[in-house]
Amino acid sequence: MNIADIVQRSDTTPGRIFDWTIIGLIMISIVTLSIDTLPDLPQPLQSILAISEFVVMGLFTLEYCLRVATAPRKLGYIFSFYGVVDLLAIVPFYLSLGTIDAQVLRIVRLFRIIRILKLTRYSRAMNRFQKAVVLAKEEIVLFSGITAVLLYLAAFGIYHFEHTTQPEAFPSVLHSLWWATATLTTVGYGDVYPVTTGGRLFTFVILMCGLGIVAVPTGLVAAALSKVRQNEEREEIR
Amino acid sequence: MNIADIVQRSDTTPGRIFDWTIIGLIMISIVTLSIDTLPDLPQPLQSILAISEFVVMGLFTLEYCLRVATAPRKLGYIFSFYGVVDLLAIVPFYLSLGTIDAQVLRIVRLFRIIRILKLTRYSRAMNRFQKAVVLAKEEIVLFSGITAVLLYLAAFGIYHFEHTTQPEAFPSVLHSLWWATATLTTVGYGDVYPVTTGGRLFTFVILMCGLGIVAVPTGLVAAALSKVRQNEEREEIR
Amino acid sequence: MNIADIVQRSDTTPGRIFDWTIIGLIMISIVTLSIDTLPDLPQPLQSILAISEFVVMGLFTLEYCLRVATAPRKLGYIFSFYGVVDLLAIVPFYLSLGTIDAQVLRIVRLFRIIRILKLTRYSRAMNRFQKAVVLAKEEIVLFSGITAVLLYLAAFGIYHFEHTTQPEAFPSVLHSLWWATATLTTVGYGDVYPVTTGGRLFTFVILMCGLGIVAVPTGLVAAALSKVRQNEEREEIR
Amino acid sequence: MNIADIVQRSDTTPGRIFDWTIIGLIMISIVTLSIDTLPDLPQPLQSILAISEFVVMGLFTLEYCLRVATAPRKLGYIFSFYGVVDLLAIVPFYLSLGTIDAQVLRIVRLFRIIRILKLTRYSRAMNRFQKAVVLAKEEIVLFSGITAVLLYLAAFGIYHFEHTTQPEAFPSVLHSLWWATATLTTVGYGDVYPVTTGGRLFTFVILMCGLGIVAVPTGLVAAALSKVRQNEEREEIR
Repeated sequence: MNIADIVQRSDTTPGRIFDWTIIGLIMISIVTLSIDTLPDLPQPLQSILAISEFVVMGLFTLEYCLRVATAPRKLGYIFSFYGVVDLLAIVPFYLSLGTIDAQVLRIVRLFRIIRILKLTRYSRAMNRFQKAVVLAKEEIVLFSGITAVLLYLAAFGIYHFEHTTQPEAFPSVLHSLWWATATLTTVGYGDVYPVTTGGRLFTFVILMCGLGIVAVPTGLVAAALSKVRQNEEREEIR
Repeated sequence: MNIADIVQRSDTTPGRIFDWTIIGLIMISIVTLSIDTLPDLPQPLQSILAISEFVVMGLFTLEYCLRVATAPRKLGYIFSFYGVVDLLAIVPFYLSLGTIDAQVLRIVRLFRIIRILKLTRYSRAMNRFQKAVVLAKEEIVLFSGITAVLLYLAAFGIYHFEHTTQPEAFPSVLHSLWWATATLTTVGYGDVYPVTTGGRLFTFVILMCGLGIVAVPTGLVAAALSKVRQNEEREEIR
Repeated sequence: MNIADIVQRSDTTPGRIFDWTIIGLIMISIVTLSIDTLPDLPQPLQSILAISEFVVMGLFTLEYCLRVATAPRKLGYIFSFYGVVDLLAIVPFYLSLGTIDAQVLRIVRLFRIIRILKLTRYSRAMNRFQKAVVLAKEEIVLFSGITAVLLYLAAFGIYHFEHTTQPEAFPSVLHSLWWATATLTTVGYGDVYPVTTGGRLFTFVILMCGLGIVAVPTGLVAAALSKVRQNEEREEIR
Repeated sequence: MNIADIVQRSDTTPGRIFDWTIIGLIMISIVTLSIDTLPDLPQPLQSILAISEFVVMGLFTLEYCLRVATAPRKLGYIFSFYGVVDLLAIVPFYLSLGTIDAQVLRIVRLFRIIRILKLTRYSRAMNRFQKAVVLAKEEIVLFSGITAVLLYLAAFGIYHFEHTTQPEAFPSVLHSLWWATATLTTVGYGDVYPVTTGGRLFTFVILMCGLGIVAVPTGLVAAALSKVRQNEEREEIR
C-alpha cells in the first residue's frame, strides 16, 4: 500500500484513518478560530493558540502537497471545488505572516467543514436523506415559493398597519421583512411587534395561514424518509 | 400563430414567455413598491424608481388592452376576477397623475401576486397539495374551530388571572386575544406575559393542551400529501 | 312533531335549527361577555350590551325550562353534567339582579362552550380524532409523563445554575418551572432567561433532548389520524 | 412470599406496591427539595419539611438496607449503577447532620428519578418508543451532527456580522452559540438578536435552512413509532 492509496481512498483502513485525522485537524482549527475571538484571553492561552495554529497550518500544507502529488490528474484536483477550498484554507495564514492583516480571510477556512459533510456521503442515513429530498423536491420548491410570497405579503401588510404608529420599528417594507421572518418562523425575538389593533389582527390571520405552510416541508421530508426506508426494506426482502 | 394565442394560452412556448414576462413585471413592480417605502432615498434612485414605475405601468396598460382585445368574450374578461384585478393595478397610477394622492391605492397592485399563484396551477406539486387539502378538509375545519375556541378560552382565562395585576397589558378579554395568539403559536414576542402564579399555571395548562391542537393540521397536510403521492404512483403502475 | 322532538333530538331539521340557535346565542353571550370587559365603553354600547344580556338570559331561561319540561326523566337532566352547566349559566344573572355583585360568577357561562363541542360529536372528523387519540393513548400518556419529569429536571437544573446570579428571576425551583415551560414549548417570552455560561449550556442540552419529546405526541396524533382514515377507506371498499 | 420477593421483583402485586411506594417517596422527596428553595418560608412549613425530610430519609435508608440484604450478590448491587444512586441519595443527609453544609449535595437525589423511568420499562409504549429510536437511530445521529455543524456555522456567521455593532451581545463566537441555540430552536428569548441588515439576512437564510433540519428528527420518531405499532399489529394477526 503506497501513499496515494492512503490519501485518495476512503474504503481502506489507512485511508479512513487519514480522513478522520484531517477531520480532527479541521475541528481543532475551527475551535481555535472561535476561541481566538474571546476577548481578554490570558497570555499563556494565546501562545497555545498561536502554536496550535502553526502546527495545524503546517499539517494542512503537507496534506495539500500530498493531495496534489498523489492526484491522478494534478491540475484536475487543483482546480476542482475541493482543491480550491483546501488551498484557500491555508493561503490566508501565509499572507498574514507577511504582516498583511488576514484576520477576516481566515474565515474562509470554515468552508473546509464541507469535508466533514463529504464523509457522511458513505453513511446510509445521508443516502436515504438525499433520496427523500429528491422524492419531495417538487413540494419543497413549491412551499419555498409560497413561503417567499407569504413573507413579502406579511411585510407589506404590517408596514401599512404599523408604519404611522411605529415609524422606527417599521421604517419600510424591506425592514418589515425582518419582522415577517421572526414571526412566521415563530422565533419572536420581541424587538419588533405590532401594537395597533389592525396590525395584531393581521398578524393573527397571517400566522394562522402561514404556520402550516412554513412547517409542512419538514413533515414532508420526514414522511419521505420513512418511505425511502420502507422501499429499502422491501428490496432487501426480495 | 396570432397575438390571441400568445396572450390567452399558457401551453405554447410564446404563451409561456408572455406569462413569465408578466410575472417578471409584477415582481419588478412590487419590489419597486417596497423600495419606495425606504426613508431618505437618494435622488438618483428616486428617479430610477419613477421611470421604472412609468415603464411598468405602460406595459401593464398594454397588457390589459391586449387581454381585452383578444378575449373571446370581452365583457366576460372585464368583469371577471382577473379582469378587475388587472384594471385595479393600473387605475391608481393614472389617478395619481391628476395630482390625487393615490399612494395607498397603489397597494391594490399586490393582488396581482395571485397571477403568480395562477401559474402554479400547472405544477404537479400544487395539484397534489390541493388534493391533500381536500383529503384532510374535514380535519382542518375541525381543528380550526377548536383552535378558535381555545384562543378565546385562553384569552378569557388569562384576563381573569392577570387583569387586576397588569391592567395595562390585559385591559380586556379582546386585548388578551393578542397574548393568546402569540402564546399558542409559540411566537412569544414577550410584550405581554403572565406574572401571577395563577396566570402562569393557566398558561402551562393551556400550552400543554393547545400545542398539539394548533400543530396537528400541519402534520395532517404532510401525511395527506404522502398519501396523494402514493396513490399517483399506484395509478402510474397500472 | 312536538316540542320534545325539537328540543331533545339533533337528527331532524327542526332539532338542528334549535341546536344551532342555542349555539348562536351562546356565542353572542360570550362575545357580549368579552366586549363588556373593554375599558371606557361609550354609553350607547353599554345599553346595547345590557339589553342583549337581558334578551339572551331570557332565552337561556326559556331553553332551560323547555329542556326540563321535555326531558324523559326530569331529575336525570337537572343533575346531569349538561343540566348543571345550563343552570349555572343563568343563575349568576338572577343573583346580580338582587344587587349581589356576580360579575365573576358570570364566567361560569364559559362552560356552555362545551355545548359547541357536543355538536362536533356528530362530525366524522371528530369521530376519527377520538379514534386516533385512543390509538395513540399509551404514547400520549408516556410522553406527558416524560414531559412532566423533564420540566421538573429543567427547573431544578436552571435554579442551581442561575439562582445566585439572578435571585429575582429564579427565586426558587417552583418559580423556575415557569422558565422551563416557556423554554421547552419554545414560546420564549424573554422575561426570564439564563445569563451564566453554565445555565446556557444546560439550556442547550435540555432543549436538544426536550424539543423532540414535547413535539412527538403531535406527530403521533397526526399519524394515527391518517391510520384511522385509511382503515375507514378499507372498510368502505369491502 | 418472603421479603426478597417483595423488594427484588416487579411482576407480583406486593412487588409492585413496594415499587410504587418507593416512587411515591422519591416524588415527595423531590417536591420537598423544590419547596425548600422557596424564599421566606413560614416557620410551621419549615418544620413540616424538616420532619418529612427525616421520615423520607429514614425510609430510604431502610430501603437501601433491604435491597442490600435481599440482593442475590450483595457487592454486585452495591457497586451497580442503581446501588450507587440509591446510596448517594441518602449520604448527603447523614453528612449534613454532622454540621457539614451538604445543601448542594442533596441535588444528587434527583438521579433517583431514573427509578421512575425504570418502571416505564414494563410499559408497551416505552417498548415501542425504544424500538422506534433504534429504527431511526442512523437518521437521529446524522441530524444531530448536522444540527451541531449548523449551530457552529450560525454562531460564526452572526459573530462576523454583528460583533462590531454589538460587541456586548456578541463578544465572541462561543458567546454567539447562545444566540444560535435560542434562534434555531425558535425559542427566541429576545435577549440577543441581530440589528444589522447583513446579520438579519444571514438569520433569515440560516432559519430557512435550519428549521427543517432541527425539526426533522421529531417527525422521524413519530413516523417510526407508527411503523412499530403497525408491525406489532401484523404479528398479532399471525
